[in-house]
Amino acid sequence: MEISKRAAALPSSAIRKLVPLSDAAEAKGIHVYHLNVGAPDIKSPDCALQAVAQKCQNLHHLSYTNSAGFAELRKALIDKYYSKLGFDLKLENILINVAGTESFAQAIQIVSDPGDEIIVVEPFYTNYKTFCVINQVELKAVHSDIKDGFRIPDISEFEKVLSPRTKAVLISNPCNPSGKLFSREEMLQIGEFCKKNNLFLICDEVYREFCYTDEPHFSCLNLKGLEENVIMCDSVSKRYNLCGARIGCIVSKNPQVMAAALKYSQSRLCPPVLGQYAALGALDTPQSYFDEVKQEYIRRRDYTLSRLNAIPGIYSPVPLGAFYAIASLPVENAEDFCRWMLTDFVMDSATTMVTPIETFYCTQGCGRNQIRLAYVLELDKLEKALNILEAGLAAYTSL
Amino acid sequence: MEISKRAAALPSSAIRKLVPLSDAAEAKGIHVYHLNVGAPDIKSPDCALQAVAQKCQNLHHLSYTNSAGFAELRKALIDKYYSKLGFDLKLENILINVAGTESFAQAIQIVSDPGDEIIVVEPFYTNYKTFCVINQVELKAVHSDIKDGFRIPDISEFEKVLSPRTKAVLISNPCNPSGKLFSREEMLQIGEFCKKNNLFLICDEVYREFCYTDEPHFSCLNLKGLEENVIMCDSVSKRYNLCGARIGCIVSKNPQVMAAALKYSQSRLCPPVLGQYAALGALDTPQSYFDEVKQEYIRRRDYTLSRLNAIPGIYSPVPLGAFYAIASLPVENAEDFCRWMLTDFVMDSATTMVTPIETFYCTQGCGRNQIRLAYVLELDKLEKALNILEAGLAAYTSL
Repeated sequence: MEISKRAAALPSSAIRKLVPLSDAAEAKGIHVYHLNVGAPDIKSPDCALQAVAQKCQNLHHLSYTNSAGFAELRKALIDKYYSKLGFDLKLENILINVAGTESFAQAIQIVSDPGDEIIVVEPFYTNYKTFCVINQVELKAVHSDIKDGFRIPDISEFEKVLSPRTKAVLISNPCNPSGKLFSREEMLQIGEFCKKNNLFLICDEVYREFCYTDEPHFSCLNLKGLEENVIMCDSVSKRYNLCGARIGCIVSKNPQVMAAALKYSQSRLCPPVLGQYAALGALDTPQSYFDEVKQEYIRRRDYTLSRLNAIPGIYSPVPLGAFYAIASLPVENAEDFCRWMLTDFVMDSATTMVTPIETFYCTQGCGRNQIRLAYVLELDKLEKALNILEAGLAAYTSL
Repeated sequence: MEISKRAAALPSSAIRKLVPLSDAAEAKGIHVYHLNVGAPDIKSPDCALQAVAQKCQNLHHLSYTNSAGFAELRKALIDKYYSKLGFDLKLENILINVAGTESFAQAIQIVSDPGDEIIVVEPFYTNYKTFCVINQVELKAVHSDIKDGFRIPDISEFEKVLSPRTKAVLISNPCNPSGKLFSREEMLQIGEFCKKNNLFLICDEVYREFCYTDEPHFSCLNLKGLEENVIMCDSVSKRYNLCGARIGCIVSKNPQVMAAALKYSQSRLCPPVLGQYAALGALDTPQSYFDEVKQEYIRRRDYTLSRLNAIPGIYSPVPLGAFYAIASLPVENAEDFCRWMLTDFVMDSATTMVTPIETFYCTQGCGRNQIRLAYVLELDKLEKALNILEAGLAAYTSL
């Protein structure tokens, strides 16, 4: 029995494919510091999980909701969250999804047919590539370089990869994995490029609350005159530390896009209902929660970056958003090093897991010596994890 | 801005596309009896929702789980549920998914490439068609007819639609929408057909607990020598009245299939975690719960069928499993009638919604005068719903 060519060709998750090695290390009693996944350890707002607990006390049975999610949740998202950001949204502009992942998976199918192309800025979140492979769409990458601190490329670079098959530009802002923020000016230029060339603009904004500059986040929904082009993908996962709730949404003012999204959503019946309760409860989170979380991440970022850049041969530009840092290492192949850390290096009965990011690039050979670190642990754990990384790298490079 | 051809071509859910009409009726204050969706009103087992409530009381934050789901849940599913059914499964044979829907969506991609074919017995659950359209796979239907009580066709009928592009047989057992049960003998024959022709056998068994005969359900996992061919799709939705949990699983002893399923699962990070808690809690459901639920459905089925078949011009064969009945109506176009019931017919400030099922067939023109009813309401509500249906039909046919 042979499985399909498409299933055989599907890439393993670059972020998760080393998990068997960390499982094996943990099975041997080695503590693994996980800087490989964006799975934060911050407490979820009490109001989120308490809402679920209360609901479950009195619930008769757990029924389907509308495929678009509870109308109550969609309305509350607009009234209690998006309206504060200045987004003028109606119920029909928002559809609850199985987290940000399903939102961009839908967006890719809605904007492109097999053989079409989507422009991304590399390095990009690898899952974009996975869903493009699944949907037979080609990613065309505009390069941002670690040496320039991942400066967003000029529009002329976007024009170079434009073709008659280009259907959309897909960005994450703040960017996973580079931590880059798109400025107002950069967003306006990309918007103009999309408008001029009749392209959709898909923006993954799940890290919106994690911006470490004084300027407010400039959302794709702030772009005037691009209502037909813009598709925004959002999630409660990072914002409220509810990664396991699997709740997000797709937002667009293009009625054709939303009608198509609803058809895709109907095929999977409804989004997870208990997660919808958590999301509804989370909307009562006080601003102080976000402020404290942001301060905590700034501390973690500053510590991580100062440690990384003090290690000989490592370079890591300061990220301005999200909770990732990219570092270039004095090794030829970062994946080999990451594997070796899990299979061969132990210090104080522990090791550190990070993600090699060659697959976050399209350009051949790019990022081969780079890793992504998620600074999602408390400072004392980060310290230990970075001590191990530093010692491991020294040992590895003197092998 | 034009959306993709594939998104434009995606069919609306036949089951859900009349929802705007029922929403409109409800907005006018009309009570709608929903016999259109398999959304049961039976209480979920206390142990399921209490497990969630307790967990949420003390949870620090809601993190991702493994992409395959909690190992604890996979193990408990095997030990507390599947082992009782005599299935000899190991942890690597089972992967937690976003309900049965994701399981068969994955199975379709794993067994077939664009242009390939999958054999189904019509009428079939329309979502199979949706996912085949999404994945550019053609359904080839073997016909079962309402006049024969939806008797499972002879293997010679399967052979007639077999082609070099056929990759799998896909069945639901018990069958949604016909309520048909595949006997041991029929399963053995289909198994042999798959074995002989090197086909996968995908079985959707989400209604396994809803069999109304004395014989035990004969699962695809009971087929000897077909370990490489069989992919079983399951769900906690119907079994424990946890439709909103969105938890199911894909089960196979073919390591290639499971490795591919894991890659697809990694792309959506993890299954809903709160739903996984509910599923874990549900595994402590006592046998008495299933027995009582089954008795309740037998009462509902018997009442529904006796009422339907007493209406002049209606014929509805007795279903032996699941909680659906198909009825042929004395109308030309059942969809027109279903729409009319929502837009034009009211009795005692209420109306009844059922599903037209022409799209549950591949064969042109088949099922045009047929509806699917889900007998998922309490008897007194079923009575009112069927009174309305009877009166509505009489009024419609004398228009």
